[in-house]
Amino acid sequence: MRIARFSIDGNVAFGAVEGDKQDELVLDIIKGIPYGVDFELSGVKVPLSKVRLLPPVIGNKIVAFGRNYADHAKELGNEVPEAPFAFFKPSTSMIASGDAIQYPSFSQEVHYEAELAVVIGRMCREVPRERVKDVIFGYTCANDVTARDVQKREKQWARAKGFDTSCPLGPWVETDLDLRRANDLTIQLTVNGEQRQLGRTSEMIHPIEDLVVNISEAMTLLPGDVILTGTPAGVGPLNVGDEVAVTIEGIGTLTNKVVKRG
Amino acid sequence: MRIARFSIDGNVAFGAVEGDKQDELVLDIIKGIPYGVDFELSGVKVPLSKVRLLPPVIGNKIVAFGRNYADHAKELGNEVPEAPFAFFKPSTSMIASGDAIQYPSFSQEVHYEAELAVVIGRMCREVPRERVKDVIFGYTCANDVTARDVQKREKQWARAKGFDTSCPLGPWVETDLDLRRANDLTIQLTVNGEQRQLGRTSEMIHPIEDLVVNISEAMTLLPGDVILTGTPAGVGPLNVGDEVAVTIEGIGTLTNKVVKRG
Repeated sequence: MRIARFSIDGNVAFGAVEGDKQDELVLDIIKGIPYGVDFELSGVKVPLSKVRLLPPVIGNKIVAFGRNYADHAKELGNEVPEAPFAFFKPSTSMIASGDAIQYPSFSQEVHYEAELAVVIGRMCREVPRERVKDVIFGYTCANDVTARDVQKREKQWARAKGFDTSCPLGPWVETDLDLRRANDLTIQLTVNGEQRQLGRTSEMIHPIEDLVVNISEAMTLLPGDVILTGTPAGVGPLNVGDEVAVTIEGIGTLTNKVVKRG
Repeated sequence: MRIARFSIDGNVAFGAVEGDKQDELVLDIIKGIPYGVDFELSGVKVPLSKVRLLPPVIGNKIVAFGRNYADHAKELGNEVPEAPFAFFKPSTSMIASGDAIQYPSFSQEVHYEAELAVVIGRMCREVPRERVKDVIFGYTCANDVTARDVQKREKQWARAKGFDTSCPLGPWVETDLDLRRANDLTIQLTVNGEQRQLGRTSEMIHPIEDLVVNISEAMTLLPGDVILTGTPAGVGPLNVGDEVAVTIEGIGTLTNKVVKRG
């Protein structure tokens, strides 16, 4: 099931996405919040074209792993790390598909980074490898937008990777992918329709299981927390006016325009 | 005013702390949530000794600045950075005064770091230096508990400084300190009653104004967000069984025992 979060006439709800053609998608409104519990569809339907999509999670934590694709580590002149390492993006950085990435005033070099996002479905800590599948709610597309110049200057990346609008997520959470499949999906990024990144999640140095084990060893994960799994090679600059799109096989396409911060 | 958050008989509330002697402190229960709005005291009072203190904020972001005291940067063999740099601690890392720091399984070298915490009172971004005082709700004590061995191994510090119980905050938020005074307070840390850190916030390389300007240039701050301002020299290990206490002049004392994670 594809679960979107949206607003219509000022009301916020979750909905199950039905249909195949982009122009004809319909949302069946979900009763309540579909995280970590059984939930029901209301049968009340609205066309997706009539709503405003919101980030598909009400996030607390966004944990992002660095250098999890060898070719990407190398393209930035970095060594491939032996163990995974993680940083946070704040919930204030999240935007939805269709929202604008605001080019911040303190950077002259903002890059895109296409990533598979894992959405956590239940409260957990110290998750054993074989239980990882049980704590995952689903998967969505992410763009780990990065002020590359600031990242090079500042030892820790709170500003470089945490500025407002630096975490596009969406368009919805796909809950029907199993772990094996999620570890082997095509991930693609285009800027103004031109392909810039093309990889497979099977190229991840540390697959999803390892990342969940690694971070949950240290801290409690909550329903709606998001884990970004790293970006393949091909990162590069975004400019004001660009349209950037992340497409992941079996999930969908996350699209954002770049505007000057107002 | 000293504003605490607490639970009693399963109910959670904020309260204004009255009295001077530790054993005789009383909480006047606040109506509602005292962040960013005018609030009223109810006149209903409970002894502080009868409640369980909670972290004094309902936090979204904890932004922490690294190496903001020259002597501390040097004691770890680091250069003093020219510009401030920040990292995040997640809200799941927060505990209150009186709660236990749980020594995590993945570290053999957990350190204390006493820090002045700035609590944000209103939603803001791109705060000009002269308006910083208007976005601050108050100040509290923090312990930026750090898995030093993990910090040395992992390029970004999500696990090293983000594990559960790694952010003791409290005992309450002092709202009556002005900025000038907050930038010149004695900060002290003891382990089992022995002094290990003693500094003044006037030794900060970047004073509070600079830190708020720096981080709000990038991202929106929300009421209840916390900014940790760095630690003075004297950091060192904690062991299971230790009692660690951070005392900041004009605020109070944050006390935590160290236990093995169960």
